[in-house]
Amino acid sequence: MSTTTVQESTAHARLRFDVEQELHGLFTRSRATASGYGPELTRLLSLTERQIQGGKLLRPLLLLETHRALQGAHETAPSGLQAYRRRAPEHAEVVRIAAGIEALHAAFLLHDDVIDGDVVRRGQPNLIGELAAPSDTEARPGAARHWAQTGGILAGNLLLSAAHQLFARAALPAHLRIRLLDLLEHTILETTAGEFTDVGLSDGIVTPDLSTVLAMTRQKTASYSFELPLRAAVILADGSAELEARLRAAGSHLGVAYQLQDDLLSAFGDARTHGKDPYSDLREGKQTAIVCFARMSSAWPQLAADFGDPHLSFEGAERLRSGLRDCGAEAFVRGLIQDQLTAFDALLSDGEAGAIPPAVADVLRALIARIDGRQS
Amino acid sequence: MSTTTVQESTAHARLRFDVEQELHGLFTRSRATASGYGPELTRLLSLTERQIQGGKLLRPLLLLETHRALQGAHETAPSGLQAYRRRAPEHAEVVRIAAGIEALHAAFLLHDDVIDGDVVRRGQPNLIGELAAPSDTEARPGAARHWAQTGGILAGNLLLSAAHQLFARAALPAHLRIRLLDLLEHTILETTAGEFTDVGLSDGIVTPDLSTVLAMTRQKTASYSFELPLRAAVILADGSAELEARLRAAGSHLGVAYQLQDDLLSAFGDARTHGKDPYSDLREGKQTAIVCFARMSSAWPQLAADFGDPHLSFEGAERLRSGLRDCGAEAFVRGLIQDQLTAFDALLSDGEAGAIPPAVADVLRALIARIDGRQS
Repeated sequence: MSTTTVQESTAHARLRFDVEQELHGLFTRSRATASGYGPELTRLLSLTERQIQGGKLLRPLLLLETHRALQGAHETAPSGLQAYRRRAPEHAEVVRIAAGIEALHAAFLLHDDVIDGDVVRRGQPNLIGELAAPSDTEARPGAARHWAQTGGILAGNLLLSAAHQLFARAALPAHLRIRLLDLLEHTILETTAGEFTDVGLSDGIVTPDLSTVLAMTRQKTASYSFELPLRAAVILADGSAELEARLRAAGSHLGVAYQLQDDLLSAFGDARTHGKDPYSDLREGKQTAIVCFARMSSAWPQLAADFGDPHLSFEGAERLRSGLRDCGAEAFVRGLIQDQLTAFDALLSDGEAGAIPPAVADVLRALIARIDGRQS
Repeated sequence: MSTTTVQESTAHARLRFDVEQELHGLFTRSRATASGYGPELTRLLSLTERQIQGGKLLRPLLLLETHRALQGAHETAPSGLQAYRRRAPEHAEVVRIAAGIEALHAAFLLHDDVIDGDVVRRGQPNLIGELAAPSDTEARPGAARHWAQTGGILAGNLLLSAAHQLFARAALPAHLRIRLLDLLEHTILETTAGEFTDVGLSDGIVTPDLSTVLAMTRQKTASYSFELPLRAAVILADGSAELEARLRAAGSHLGVAYQLQDDLLSAFGDARTHGKDPYSDLREGKQTAIVCFARMSSAWPQLAADFGDPHLSFEGAERLRSGLRDCGAEAFVRGLIQDQLTAFDALLSDGEAGAIPPAVADVLRALIARIDGRQS
């Protein structure tokens, strides 16, 4: 490990700690208030905190690192230095927005789990799974599951509320606070569009063509996971609308590439490494870009019978995987990822007005390396 | 109708119009953004607006009338006049918070419907019922229902987000904005506690004793429907913490009385007048104060078999109703309502520090008259 990498890891760990502390403070306050409302809500809050604290904090770190890089860029540009220093928000305010983004992420994950009926995440029972665990008090079959799903909806609501509270309380000049609130509003609407389309695809309500699936991917994943932290970093640094638009486009390319890579891992990856049920996407009939390509190929009639079969056997799943590979779907999606990364590179090397500062480009390139190399 | 009542109705109609316009503006903006995301989200937003615009706006009107009464009180108190005039928020800001409270109410209703599996509200298909209507594109049984439930969760999230956005954007001095955000946070946590307990009672997870049911009633109904609008009115008028606490207590008494009255109407009311399924609470086994009293009586063994039977016949339901009446449960709950109203009256006539101004007391007494006389 090089000295730079060690320094980088220490800086990461510190930022991660700051975000975890902000989130912990939030839950500690909620639990103190909730202690008067009986044990159920207190337990729900503890399970919710456990859920949110287990994450990798990729989105908050992307915001914090990008903001730091933008600050550096300000400081090396003598003309803007005085003005920026005067207005630069405290580190605590940036951490607060970063924590808000993580709360939003956790809210989306939890409601996704409710909608998909999932009770496991990262190989462990999720909040719903914990709440649904059989107990002596269970009155009738299905009741514990209904109670657990209700807990999932309510906990998601508390996290969604927390995200808004963190954004609303940022001690920033009014125009920056409103810019952040506009961004939050836009992001939630866009993510909702993506989620609604995704469920509509799975439920057979929305027609699964490639352009719909790619638009859904950007809306559901890229918008809040990549565009939101990058744009928030620009706003917190009082950066220009041009820079914000440029970083939004960069985030969009990165986010779509990330999700397509995730689809490839789910369909073709080694389950022992990425820790998911290796065939869950195939059993659920998840409409990915891989499947959209396969559907247009002459191999589809052979694959259609196995795809979306909840009782798909090991042999059936392996046959389906081979079929998707042989018809060219895997290579096609690898090509789509490459297209996104090429467009991303072009944005980074473009020196026009509102160009991405070199220090920010470094942050994004490091992220690419992590996405490229990931097995999970 | 007296001249005062006509003036009152005109003033009501104008306030109602202001709130409806604020909400309409919000949905018009969302639909404009959503038009790029395909027809599903646009339809979801239209159904969501139809849902929210159909209400009686009781909560926004309570806020607006109380705030107007507090303004009047300020104006007749010469010593405080100048200071208040300087700081009084624009009418538009008060309307914005009122609209935020209605959005919160609509969010809670929608998520309640998802949790309870309800597809009808006010005798019409609700948003979930509209989305679940069979169509040509339905791929497999259950899919349309799943899609509709998903739409209910997502629409509730958009309304919850809208409530926060409206509070966060209030153009108020920072200390009042933070006071409103604290109030919103507290209210959501408390309502969540009430909803989680209510579902836990229905699912047989939480033990149905009277004190639990009464605490749940205050948390689930009184907190956001009465305490929130009254406290927000005080904060918007920059009123004292004492007055806020006093009006909170008044709202708590009113809210609990309102919900107990609702329970009585659901259990014993005339279905032709109040428009609900007359036996739904009895069929669902809803744990109300009525049932808690009956459970402690010697009549319970005879009633227990019918209570919570989803296939309860007309005769069975009528037998159960008579049993609840005969064991004294109806009279007991009427007594509980009277206790709340007596405590409420004592608060209103108390002339100590932080006392409720006469004009505000008039608003609350008019509300009581409406609650007392209501058949639905």
